[in-house]
Amino acid sequence: MIEYTPPVEDYRFLLNDVLDFEAAMADMGKDIDADLAAAVLEEAGKLCAQTLAPINREGDEEGSRLVDGAVRTPPGFADAYREFVAGGWAALSGDPEWGGQGLPFILQLWLDEMMSAANLSFGLFPGLTRGAAEAIADHATEELKATYLPRMVSGEWTGAMALTESGAGTDLALLKTKAVDAGDGSFAVTGQKIFISSGDHDFGGNIVHLVLARLPDAPAGVKGISLFLVPKFLPDADGEFTIRNTMSVGALEKKMGIHAQPTCVMNYDEATGWLVGEPHRGLAAMFTMMNAERLMVGIQGLGIAGAAYQQAAAYARERLQGRSADGARSPVAIIEHADVRRMLLNVRAFVEAGRALAGWTALQLDRAHGHADPQERAKADGLVALLTPVVKAAFTDFGFEGAVEAQQVFGGHGYIREWGMEQYVRDARIAQIYEGTNGVQAMDLVGRKLSMAGGKVAEEFFDLIAADLEADAQTDAAAPVAQRTATALGLLREATAGLQGAEVNALGAAAHDYLRLFALVSFGWMWTRMAAAAAGGDTLFHKSKVEMAHYFATRVLPQTEGLAASISEGEGPIMAMDAEAF
Amino acid sequence: MIEYTPPVEDYRFLLNDVLDFEAAMADMGKDIDADLAAAVLEEAGKLCAQTLAPINREGDEEGSRLVDGAVRTPPGFADAYREFVAGGWAALSGDPEWGGQGLPFILQLWLDEMMSAANLSFGLFPGLTRGAAEAIADHATEELKATYLPRMVSGEWTGAMALTESGAGTDLALLKTKAVDAGDGSFAVTGQKIFISSGDHDFGGNIVHLVLARLPDAPAGVKGISLFLVPKFLPDADGEFTIRNTMSVGALEKKMGIHAQPTCVMNYDEATGWLVGEPHRGLAAMFTMMNAERLMVGIQGLGIAGAAYQQAAAYARERLQGRSADGARSPVAIIEHADVRRMLLNVRAFVEAGRALAGWTALQLDRAHGHADPQERAKADGLVALLTPVVKAAFTDFGFEGAVEAQQVFGGHGYIREWGMEQYVRDARIAQIYEGTNGVQAMDLVGRKLSMAGGKVAEEFFDLIAADLEADAQTDAAAPVAQRTATALGLLREATAGLQGAEVNALGAAAHDYLRLFALVSFGWMWTRMAAAAAGGDTLFHKSKVEMAHYFATRVLPQTEGLAASISEGEGPIMAMDAEAF
Repeated sequence: MIEYTPPVEDYRFLLNDVLDFEAAMADMGKDIDADLAAAVLEEAGKLCAQTLAPINREGDEEGSRLVDGAVRTPPGFADAYREFVAGGWAALSGDPEWGGQGLPFILQLWLDEMMSAANLSFGLFPGLTRGAAEAIADHATEELKATYLPRMVSGEWTGAMALTESGAGTDLALLKTKAVDAGDGSFAVTGQKIFISSGDHDFGGNIVHLVLARLPDAPAGVKGISLFLVPKFLPDADGEFTIRNTMSVGALEKKMGIHAQPTCVMNYDEATGWLVGEPHRGLAAMFTMMNAERLMVGIQGLGIAGAAYQQAAAYARERLQGRSADGARSPVAIIEHADVRRMLLNVRAFVEAGRALAGWTALQLDRAHGHADPQERAKADGLVALLTPVVKAAFTDFGFEGAVEAQQVFGGHGYIREWGMEQYVRDARIAQIYEGTNGVQAMDLVGRKLSMAGGKVAEEFFDLIAADLEADAQTDAAAPVAQRTATALGLLREATAGLQGAEVNALGAAAHDYLRLFALVSFGWMWTRMAAAAAGGDTLFHKSKVEMAHYFATRVLPQTEGLAASISEGEGPIMAMDAEAF
Repeated sequence: MIEYTPPVEDYRFLLNDVLDFEAAMADMGKDIDADLAAAVLEEAGKLCAQTLAPINREGDEEGSRLVDGAVRTPPGFADAYREFVAGGWAALSGDPEWGGQGLPFILQLWLDEMMSAANLSFGLFPGLTRGAAEAIADHATEELKATYLPRMVSGEWTGAMALTESGAGTDLALLKTKAVDAGDGSFAVTGQKIFISSGDHDFGGNIVHLVLARLPDAPAGVKGISLFLVPKFLPDADGEFTIRNTMSVGALEKKMGIHAQPTCVMNYDEATGWLVGEPHRGLAAMFTMMNAERLMVGIQGLGIAGAAYQQAAAYARERLQGRSADGARSPVAIIEHADVRRMLLNVRAFVEAGRALAGWTALQLDRAHGHADPQERAKADGLVALLTPVVKAAFTDFGFEGAVEAQQVFGGHGYIREWGMEQYVRDARIAQIYEGTNGVQAMDLVGRKLSMAGGKVAEEFFDLIAADLEADAQTDAAAPVAQRTATALGLLREATAGLQGAEVNALGAAAHDYLRLFALVSFGWMWTRMAAAAAGGDTLFHKSKVEMAHYFATRVLPQTEGLAASISEGEGPIMAMDAEAF
């Protein structure tokens, strides 16, 4: 069995010494101490380690199956889900108005990290439910909210998002599913959707689909799309949800990974649904879901890379091969070999910086929702908007690369299924694709996000980093990390200036490399802060934080030079070739 | 069905305009014209496209199975193999002394590229057979050669290499399989081997295992390992191979990919075998196999990336999503989007440079075997030895990354099995691991290979590149590519100088990044040569070669800056952390 150790020590360090959680909460008028927060994470970690991790491998081998039109999840999944709900974990960050516990989003995001590390296929069920509930809370009628939200927030019912069609993925303007007014306040929804995660399951309870469709009078394009709530079960005369809606699972997608997760082809055949939000304004409602989901998907990359790192580090400490550097001992644990260390350090350099940056971003989201001052809320909201594509794309890119490097540490055993390393790679791969491919994220960053408030949001973020670097450079252990990060920040500012007012192709040509540059600078910022925070301590934990920061600054951060150089070349080299020459 | 188009036009270009194939052959006293060579490749390509590619997807779904102790390969594999042998393709580059056609190795390597592109699992059967035959030819007795080689060179019989044990992978010193002299010239071999590709199959004919084992009086460590030829079928009194040897398939490994390839756990139970080479000198014989195999494995990465590129480019030309850059047209083929182009160009920048570099290296191998002048042979041999770890590791790393990028072009469809893109990723992954992990290759490069002839081999290679760059800089279209490559070559020379006399950990800390830097410079060299060669032509083919060279120089080559900076940091950041802190 593959063991998973929740990174609780790291969470404590971040809460107490790096992110100053209590002060951040107090600033929002909330009195939550860091010990309580860590205790919540520790309990959540136990569930992930003891209940979710043990069913992950078999979940991959067995997969979800379609039996007589209904999804059967792998052994243990339904029980685990019920345990998850009974423990109140589905409701952790949910709105108290609907029965949620209202705990800060930073705890939710780190719970998501642990769930993804333990069992990504499982984590998608509550994750998608939260996204759907959020869209309903923000856009649906009071009646729909009262009917659906209490049972979705508790996790008793689950949610699914039905957006993609075979001809309409990134470009939703092309979608064809139709909705017709039934005259009784409901609509009849007809069409086929693909890639629908958690579209069906055997956990019991209702499954609430949010379906994008067109009304008969809809204008063409994205301005003619509406959002509908289409539940698997409809209420009968007594208000019990016993009537099967006319929607069905056409097939389960056969995928590279996340085999335990039932990714459905869904057919809606005049299925009964209700409008969520205004007619033709479905995209706005959908983006409510998407933004929260995108942060969560980024965290999936982080979670898997963290789990893969743990396995690889443990293996490297135990696996005996080769000779010590001085030639005196043989065989030695492969952790002694520099190139094995390099692989492990690479993964960890991302994981721990990512965990910190996720925490910082989540605190901004908490501020955006909970701060008393509207200006502070708006500022935090801008920062979350800026960071969302970075977290989504960079965390899933580095997360996938990290899973691959951790797999490499195992040599041939990494390629064999029973060791579990190749599952991490296959599972991590989806996160680079869904909820908007990483290319779409990069375009969102350089297009929409950099131009927010005329570029001021990005500028303020860079100023904030610069101020932290300057402050932390006073600490000896952090100074070299701060200096190198400041140099990289200079490259990022220059690249940002170069994109002001750029045309679409120039933005597209820069987007991928720019996002990666942005992420590396942000990681450098977090490593600087962690090095400064750890500098006082003399435990192995603190010492290794400082060493990791130096590793990042010297061996990872230099990538920024090539990225900046590449970005400066502009669109020419990319747009030159004729389409037919590809 | 997934179509594969053999890159025959590219081969022609390389043979005629870049590598000057006819002159190279003439210099070795061989009279083979480039048209004939291209015609051979064209015919080989037809077999790959029409016979091997069509059974690749089903091969992945069905996999090889173990039925009553015998391997059953997927539908079509046995027939395809017999067709392959009947067409003489197994014997293409084989020694005429044993019935081979003796065609140049450059044709063999490009045939390998097409086989890997069409069906990697299939390509391993003839590939391993060639490696085993080479070891037998170089080290076995005349009797063993006469008995086994004719039928192995023709492909009637296949070969397998049985090296790895569960506790002995990279470090063969740890292996435990034993061989005891049977007193009749044969040995009784007993032990268990894992990860044995092509260990068994249902193609008919004998299967010749080369097994590493220890004799009873063997010294400990790698100097006590001997190599044995252990055939599945032993000769009866009439010299017919009808007697089943006491070896069996214990299990098939369940793997991430290459499902059609039967990767066996093999049990040898006092199996009859014969010594190949001197007692205790098995490692030397094994390295004969390994070196040829390593080039071939590099080519596997190239082949898969090339195939994945073709699919992705075709998809990008057809898939309609989003708006044109000027906003006027919607939806447009995604090939219009800069970030999609970037992904495709990245893959192609590697594939075409890799194809050229593979051809150049193969020509050196031809010289090393076939040139009349022993000094020329030795020089070519040194270059092949230098390039072998680079081709193996860099081609499989870039090949895997290329398969991932090509998959990304497909969005969600790339994650779905039926499209075939995720199979490329899973199949390509193994090539980074087997025949010596890429970490081992990098250590081989910085350790053994850079110090050959006191560093002169590497120096001569760099001088050769520098001379070509200078010459090609005279061609306008190639000049900027040559200049940028020259700058990168400067970084490579500097890094090389920094590694002279370095200790093991310093070498290990640099190895990975150094190999990648070395590869990028080599690709830049090939792009310069291709740009210069294509500069005269005005076809779309020639024009796009020049554009690709510029893309590589401006958007890929800048990575060398970060790599050089990272290498210059030395071992400190990697070796600092305590093993227990990982």
